[in-house]
Amino acid sequence: MKQRLTIAVLGLGTVGGGVPALLEKHREKISQVTGMEVVLAKALVKDKTEEKPVQLAKEFGFELTENFEDIINDKEIQIVAELIGGIEPARTFIKRSLESGKHVITANKDLIAQFGPELVQIAKQQKCDLYYEASVAGGIPILRTISNSLVADSIEKIYGIVNGTTNFMLTKMLLEKCSYEEALSEAQSLGFAESDPTNDVDGIDAAYKMVILTQFSFGMNISVEDIDKVGIRGLKAEDIEVAQQLGYVIKLLGSAEMTDGSVSAEVGPVLVPKYHPLASVQNEMNGVFVNSSGVGESMYYGPGAGEKPTATSVMSDLITIAKNIRMETTGHQFNLFNQETKLTPAESIFSKYYVAVEVPDQQGMLLKITRLMTEAGVSFDQILQQQSDGKNARVVIITHEISKAQMEQVKCSFEASEEIKLKSSYRVL
Amino acid sequence: MKQRLTIAVLGLGTVGGGVPALLEKHREKISQVTGMEVVLAKALVKDKTEEKPVQLAKEFGFELTENFEDIINDKEIQIVAELIGGIEPARTFIKRSLESGKHVITANKDLIAQFGPELVQIAKQQKCDLYYEASVAGGIPILRTISNSLVADSIEKIYGIVNGTTNFMLTKMLLEKCSYEEALSEAQSLGFAESDPTNDVDGIDAAYKMVILTQFSFGMNISVEDIDKVGIRGLKAEDIEVAQQLGYVIKLLGSAEMTDGSVSAEVGPVLVPKYHPLASVQNEMNGVFVNSSGVGESMYYGPGAGEKPTATSVMSDLITIAKNIRMETTGHQFNLFNQETKLTPAESIFSKYYVAVEVPDQQGMLLKITRLMTEAGVSFDQILQQQSDGKNARVVIITHEISKAQMEQVKCSFEASEEIKLKSSYRVL
Repeated sequence: MKQRLTIAVLGLGTVGGGVPALLEKHREKISQVTGMEVVLAKALVKDKTEEKPVQLAKEFGFELTENFEDIINDKEIQIVAELIGGIEPARTFIKRSLESGKHVITANKDLIAQFGPELVQIAKQQKCDLYYEASVAGGIPILRTISNSLVADSIEKIYGIVNGTTNFMLTKMLLEKCSYEEALSEAQSLGFAESDPTNDVDGIDAAYKMVILTQFSFGMNISVEDIDKVGIRGLKAEDIEVAQQLGYVIKLLGSAEMTDGSVSAEVGPVLVPKYHPLASVQNEMNGVFVNSSGVGESMYYGPGAGEKPTATSVMSDLITIAKNIRMETTGHQFNLFNQETKLTPAESIFSKYYVAVEVPDQQGMLLKITRLMTEAGVSFDQILQQQSDGKNARVVIITHEISKAQMEQVKCSFEASEEIKLKSSYRVL
Repeated sequence: MKQRLTIAVLGLGTVGGGVPALLEKHREKISQVTGMEVVLAKALVKDKTEEKPVQLAKEFGFELTENFEDIINDKEIQIVAELIGGIEPARTFIKRSLESGKHVITANKDLIAQFGPELVQIAKQQKCDLYYEASVAGGIPILRTISNSLVADSIEKIYGIVNGTTNFMLTKMLLEKCSYEEALSEAQSLGFAESDPTNDVDGIDAAYKMVILTQFSFGMNISVEDIDKVGIRGLKAEDIEVAQQLGYVIKLLGSAEMTDGSVSAEVGPVLVPKYHPLASVQNEMNGVFVNSSGVGESMYYGPGAGEKPTATSVMSDLITIAKNIRMETTGHQFNLFNQETKLTPAESIFSKYYVAVEVPDQQGMLLKITRLMTEAGVSFDQILQQQSDGKNARVVIITHEISKAQMEQVKCSFEASEEIKLKSSYRVL
């Protein structure tokens, strides 16, 4: 008879609820690959009389508990999958699990982005495994790919669509000419967006993911505060349209880049050339693009969320830990790459920018705009003066590559002027 | 001082020539991740007085030899990277390396596709590692992804652009309206295609890769003869154009699919809807698309060949083996998934088809075509009668989903008829 590996899940919600069925479905394959019988023994839930947990427990033969101590005190349980989300009590549960020698899987990006280093440290001390593949881009095995396959490469830049909700909204706005508000309300009615969509539309969720991707790509621990975040709230249909005329699609990208040994990360709407593979990532799908010195360009595409994709990533973490237990090689970090964290100053972060301004429809305005920008050392790739409504005109500029500091200077000088109103400024890929 | 891990490379050609510099460049990271100092000691070459090997050996401080015995007899050497290509002497070198307890890395798709099971068996007996990530889609870590990350998933279908040369040619034909001959001669002048392009344009190279992908995706060993191969030789500009009018791009796809526990694999031109992510895989790039029950849709995109991407994949195999040596866990197969091989009969392989026929420009022809197809139980999604040259007319049909056997019946009945000439028949995604 094969060795038994007993596990517990915390939470039977969207992700946790998918785990029992997946375990059952892949029983034979898991047993073949790991050499062990993986058994789900217990699930922690808020209310063990609720229909869904009761149904699942009955169908798949595990025990329900409302008390975390039942899990922590169960010596048989070797792996705990935290699928509750949020900071507390998840953080305490993970800490206590690791401290009592249990390996941990989590899909909790908020927690890993904010308290990852602390938890990784405890895992290391306890010689426990801590895996969190599902925390970034749900069904895409991007963390494992960076950690296992791109380890012999130098990542120079990693950027991508890591928030499905906003990508769904941007796809609607582009293809169906919806307004921001219409797109949001459709995302909400389909369950892609929360009733308070702040985390998604203001780029906070994407920033959490970029913290983790930065850690894997460059071995550096940045915090979510180090990331400039601009969301898509209030993004205008006319920006999407002008971008399209110029050959671009607007996507909310998270990006992190290495420049001379220092890192910069940001989240914001970016104009992506329409022939770029990220431009074809539509609806709620995610895509992560990597520029590296060895492989060159690569992209990893798949669903960013959803019960089955996320639960499948949790399962692949589970199999990895099971193999490690079998081979007695637990306690190695998910990401072994570590370097001193250095942030790139704004003077050394370069990009092309899309700048849209509104000016009174009178002579000399274009001259004034170009003078202010030239003073900041900015030169132009494309300028487009759009039709005036009789009172105001809209001018759209795509710059050559300039520094973030130069872009800041331009913004300040526009603000100081009476006539020039900056409507939007986005990076151009 | 850290433990030393000594390696040898066989061949310093396109791929092998890239290894010494990569090892040097990533020395610190490799040492951090594996806990060992990896040292390249020897390289096997045909002529050790040639300029490139001499130059490399001098720059990176390793020994050149023309005699494989120098490597096999060197007890220090633990890993051999076979980067010669072709069947012999590569096969013998790999066998002898494994038999003398050395771990092996290879980028040799022809060899793995034809003799993989034999070599895997020897590796297993010897408790040695045998890795070959670079053999499929050069810089894309697709084998490791299937083996590590999609192990908790059920792949239903895997298909993609796995030959860069033909994808380059098809991109030229589409975007620059080149003929097949012009595209081929450009690919040859850029070094993407050999002077004898048979392996690429007739789909043989893609078929080798599908043998390996089938093994990883479904755990089944099929042979290259089990794969229906149609290449792009003689593909007509007008097919590309009509496909475009109908909203498709023609790509040479390798595909393998699971139907009720049996597998079918083929290589051929396929009409890909232009909004599908594979449609945006251009030039010499590769893309592998996976449909699976857990993750749903995912895609892995990157360069399929080239010195640096391929050498980078070889390096990631090297690091994997180094970690295994350190943890004393060598001898596990690259792919642990194994099932009895069963082939799907043609009656159970379903697809939509694009069918182009030429008929004399006279009354009743369309009726005859549709009658023959209806007799085979085929129904139609789109029919397009194209302008006649006065003598002959061209009719293009896209069918509803039919079996491969039905499509064979249609082909036979067209052949038996005097008037209907089948010009092309391709699958539609």
